Amino acid sequence: MSKSFSPLLSELIEALRVLPGVGGKSAQRMAFSLLERNRDGALRLSKVLHDAMEHIGNCTQCRTFTEKNLCDICAHPTRGSADTICIVEAPQDVLAIEQTSQFKGRYFVLMGHLSPLDGIGPEQIGLDVLAEQLDAGGVNEVIVATNPTVEGEATSHYIAEMCRKRSISASRIAHGVPVGGELEYIDGNTLGHALSGRRGI
Amino acid sequence: MSKSFSPLLSELIEALRVLPGVGGKSAQRMAFSLLERNRDGALRLSKVLHDAMEHIGNCTQCRTFTEKNLCDICAHPTRGSADTICIVEAPQDVLAIEQTSQFKGRYFVLMGHLSPLDGIGPEQIGLDVLAEQLDAGGVNEVIVATNPTVEGEATSHYIAEMCRKRSISASRIAHGVPVGGELEYIDGNTLGHALSGRRGI
Ligand SMILES: [Zn+2]
Ligand SMILES: [Zn+2]
Repeated sequence: MSKSFSPLLSELIEALRVLPGVGGKSAQRMAFSLLERNRDGALRLSKVLHDAMEHIGNCTQCRTFTEKNLCDICAHPTRGSADTICIVEAPQDVLAIEQTSQFKGRYFVLMGHLSPLDGIGPEQIGLDVLAEQLDAGGVNEVIVATNPTVEGEATSHYIAEMCRKRSISASRIAHGVPVGGELEYIDGNTLGHALSGRRGI
Repeated sequence: MSKSFSPLLSELIEALRVLPGVGGKSAQRMAFSLLERNRDGALRLSKVLHDAMEHIGNCTQCRTFTEKNLCDICAHPTRGSADTICIVEAPQDVLAIEQTSQFKGRYFVLMGHLSPLDGIGPEQIGLDVLAEQLDAGGVNEVIVATNPTVEGEATSHYIAEMCRKRSISASRIAHGVPVGGELEYIDGNTLGHALSGRRGI
């Protein structure tokens, strides 16, 4: 970083750049701000960061992030074995849909979307796991809530095909979601309409 | 944070907000990005953050951040006892001035500026320590490189008065520093001119 900062301070500035969107100047500002004003907060962050990286894995049923074997929704007595699965790209999307209070089924979190050019095929987004769950029976409906982007649409088509082969009803949320937008930024009301106005695919 | 994230993930998102300029949405993005793509980097950050908060203190001579008793400049065989002291507001300003390669004396880092309304008086920015150093003798010149802001100017006037009482020559960097700007963002060339064109105060 610079010979004018002490080795440990230079290391801290460098280490902060692991955070997305944080360049050299912001990393400097963060380091100085923590040292000057919030060492307790920084120590708390250090501990939580360690614990989170060591203990957070993926829910064995829906793949969302959790430090337990099953996430709270999958461990729920009725929702965890619901016959409707809503498929989303990211954990943040679960939060967005939960905030509408309109969905009472379970989720499947792809943690991404199909992107063959980046080497992200069906298995990389857990579609083999989803296939096992569909084959196991008990699923009557799949609601696909991937983002309305090219990759999200391609992923949706792929999942629709998986459902068609197994005679499981599949729908896609549609109404009200602006094309090119990202699910997590849409207000709950719009998203509620998108859910109730879903159509077969 | 939200009942739809696991407790540890919610804690991580909350803890990241200790960083300046990081709100709820950026904290979420950071947490997911680290969990998905860079757990090793996050563990490294956790460790360095801990070590830095526990071990970085202030140089006993110049007050800049260092994990040692004396910073590298103060520990330097000739610079540490130089007869010229350059006074700056922040450790970043030391870096900026070092990059001009035009100053070979030592520094005194205020870690702030006078701001009576915020309860920041002379002792809060170490001017009592500076007074002891001036009284101890061996200092022939003080260069004041506080920022050209209202508080920086007020701090400069206060230091000039301290020097006048002790018949120590005091100067203020001036030429080329845009008024209202912050020292750390000025290019080395401009700052070099500001140093060589300093005038008595
Ligand atoms: Zn789950
Ligand atoms: Zn020092």
